[in-house]
Amino acid sequence: MSKSIKLAILGLGTVGTGVINLISDNLDELKRRSGRDIIITEVGTRRQRDDIDPDITQNSDLMAIAASDNVDIVIEVIGGTTLAKDIILHAIKNGKHVVTANKALLAEHGNEIFALAEANNVHVAYEAAVAGGIPIIKVMREALAANKVDWLAGIINGTGNFIMTEMRDKGRPFAEVLAEAQELGYAEADPTFDVEGIDAAHKLALLASIAFGIPLQFDQVYCEGITDITLQDVNYAEELGYRIKHVGFAVRRDGNANSDGTDQTHSDSAGIELRVHPTLIPQNTLLANVNGVKNAVLVNSHPLGQTLYYGDGAGAGATASAVMADVMDLVRVLGSEADSSHSETNHGHHVPHLGFIPDQLSDTPILRAEQMITGYYLRVHAYDNPGVLADITRILSDAGINIDAILQKPAHKLGQVPVIILTLPVVESQMNLAIEKIEKLEATTGKVIRIRLDELA
Amino acid sequence: MSKSIKLAILGLGTVGTGVINLISDNLDELKRRSGRDIIITEVGTRRQRDDIDPDITQNSDLMAIAASDNVDIVIEVIGGTTLAKDIILHAIKNGKHVVTANKALLAEHGNEIFALAEANNVHVAYEAAVAGGIPIIKVMREALAANKVDWLAGIINGTGNFIMTEMRDKGRPFAEVLAEAQELGYAEADPTFDVEGIDAAHKLALLASIAFGIPLQFDQVYCEGITDITLQDVNYAEELGYRIKHVGFAVRRDGNANSDGTDQTHSDSAGIELRVHPTLIPQNTLLANVNGVKNAVLVNSHPLGQTLYYGDGAGAGATASAVMADVMDLVRVLGSEADSSHSETNHGHHVPHLGFIPDQLSDTPILRAEQMITGYYLRVHAYDNPGVLADITRILSDAGINIDAILQKPAHKLGQVPVIILTLPVVESQMNLAIEKIEKLEATTGKVIRIRLDELA
Repeated sequence: MSKSIKLAILGLGTVGTGVINLISDNLDELKRRSGRDIIITEVGTRRQRDDIDPDITQNSDLMAIAASDNVDIVIEVIGGTTLAKDIILHAIKNGKHVVTANKALLAEHGNEIFALAEANNVHVAYEAAVAGGIPIIKVMREALAANKVDWLAGIINGTGNFIMTEMRDKGRPFAEVLAEAQELGYAEADPTFDVEGIDAAHKLALLASIAFGIPLQFDQVYCEGITDITLQDVNYAEELGYRIKHVGFAVRRDGNANSDGTDQTHSDSAGIELRVHPTLIPQNTLLANVNGVKNAVLVNSHPLGQTLYYGDGAGAGATASAVMADVMDLVRVLGSEADSSHSETNHGHHVPHLGFIPDQLSDTPILRAEQMITGYYLRVHAYDNPGVLADITRILSDAGINIDAILQKPAHKLGQVPVIILTLPVVESQMNLAIEKIEKLEATTGKVIRIRLDELA
Repeated sequence: MSKSIKLAILGLGTVGTGVINLISDNLDELKRRSGRDIIITEVGTRRQRDDIDPDITQNSDLMAIAASDNVDIVIEVIGGTTLAKDIILHAIKNGKHVVTANKALLAEHGNEIFALAEANNVHVAYEAAVAGGIPIIKVMREALAANKVDWLAGIINGTGNFIMTEMRDKGRPFAEVLAEAQELGYAEADPTFDVEGIDAAHKLALLASIAFGIPLQFDQVYCEGITDITLQDVNYAEELGYRIKHVGFAVRRDGNANSDGTDQTHSDSAGIELRVHPTLIPQNTLLANVNGVKNAVLVNSHPLGQTLYYGDGAGAGATASAVMADVMDLVRVLGSEADSSHSETNHGHHVPHLGFIPDQLSDTPILRAEQMITGYYLRVHAYDNPGVLADITRILSDAGINIDAILQKPAHKLGQVPVIILTLPVVESQMNLAIEKIEKLEATTGKVIRIRLDELA
């Protein structure tokens, strides 16, 4: 067997321990596949641990490990965007390949990190950063490399999906399910990143870059969480054949979809929509049936069409699987380096960090929220007045918004009827104007509740 | 831009034309991702075609193309197992990388073809051979490389799945739907390969080898088609919460599951089950909701758990996507060769053909049908006799077979009642004996209808 591959694991939390366990459980399999011995030489941990193989050096100086001669690949699983960043940059400068699960760090500082890696002819691999054990990074960067991506839609936050699933299946309100998710350890004590969609936005930024070949632009992601979703809307959606899920969308708009240019309502702006938000999707799609903490990403590309990738989006085993898949890819590169006198010749073998050659990234604009095009679910509360439905539909019709379905429920409070309207896709700015008019009608009361809708077609 | 990559496409049927169209549609995308110019230099076609770019050489001598100095990668999409084999072996001997969609050829002659490719330091890539555009080969060989696969279950024949979907959704009988599938071009004039499960068995042989690191053993695949599935059984299955699908299974059995060894009924033989057959799976699984001509593969591996991959299993676009993903992988290898004086150093970069280093393939035995373990759906026809249910359940119980559900329907013919029984997993040999006894009961009539059942848990 050729030269051993030496790994350092920085961080011995759930994921770091998962990686150690995976290597111990599957070492034969790893050798049979790679033809190499894969050994952990160093681990970075604040406290000395008794349960670690004594052959492995434990070190609390993570920067020293990142520069150690006894390490080929640095696995960063400490998380956070400060120390983790310093360590990764240091490892890169010291010629180490890096594997990381750190979505926040890459979404926010990936452009800088990847540029430094390119300059140092090393690779920063990040399969574990998006959708846990689902190999969506490899799929998008390599398996779909010959396709032009039109859009992708992902359930990429397990906690949020668990909450939406429980609300729908068991009729439990948001706050109650969130509390349970926290007890189960799915959600952090501060659940903001999950329920406000920030975690999903980090992952979406990564997915969008490798889908379209654009720089990472986390700060451009339109982000809406699930905290305002009520059981009432969950149930109305089901009644109409839809399901509310928290979904991240990246959509390429080529612009001017209407060739005559006269229909201002639906006129496309060219650019890319990056958005995470609750959305109605048809019940009979696979994505609508991704339940609990599971993740899935649906990709629509040309000429392949729709493909879907499903599995565990978090957890020790799934994340360790993704981390070690990256290691196995790097082992092949390192294997060749060991045999070759010209280590610089390996550059050609790296898949570019964002799937596209760095100087080929495009500056396609990211669309503002008002420019985005989606269908809508509207819940309007109106007094039970024979003319009100006519008024509402006229406002929508005047705005060029096509209605797909209407559900008028019996009055649930004194004289008030909820009217549920599903619309075909429309530019958000146009919908904003229509809603403003609907809210001003004498016969309507309160705010119009709106949730986006996507047919995934 | 570096040296161009020169492709030859052998065969201008649906897939070959799809590849040409893909390159024409997505050339910018291919260049942005690979940093190379990718050009078709030669096409192999019996008849001169007017619709091909005049810069491309058309040649009816496919063996000459396979050895041409003007070609880096040979794309074989003529199909069949005779001429295609000669061409591929010739291309390999001439140092060409090969991309093929030919599942029958690889399932039957892959061991020989891959060995020759290893010896000649070239790669034969075959993403398009299994499940069309779903990147299951890359996923299994690379993304799941750190996992130990426990089992996989795939809907890997679109025609068969279309037929099963139509039977269930529309209550149409097998023969009628098959005729439609032939009209729609999904099924060949001779539908044997599809409806008898042979096409699925070819694909399963490939999937099993890369899942477990075993040589290709198509001749060991247990194969049952869908021609005997009736609407009656489709409907009973639905009533019990299951759905009948044609599924390929590859299952690793470690043996001796029952530590005390006393329970002969359920004693495991160590080995691998390779089987394609109709099977009941729970309605609420994603796999049960893969409809029409779509394909999906569900993989259960440690530590990742279950992941699922879904998309188009056939068609020009999906197959071309897979073919060109292979080309893009090879482009990276060729790119490095162009820069390097030592082409032999690239060996380390190839993922091994079957995902495992060739000398690490294992000789794990393939289990015989009688050794396989599955649940069963049984349909027994009995005279409406108060003791018959007791007799049947006693036979099963004496054989150590656990009953999971029973459905006794009202008599549909003079005095005859269908009794539907679902069992927990049992070794087939044991079920064979029990069925023999049930068929000998005075109160039963005709053969017991049996369909396997899998909870996918």
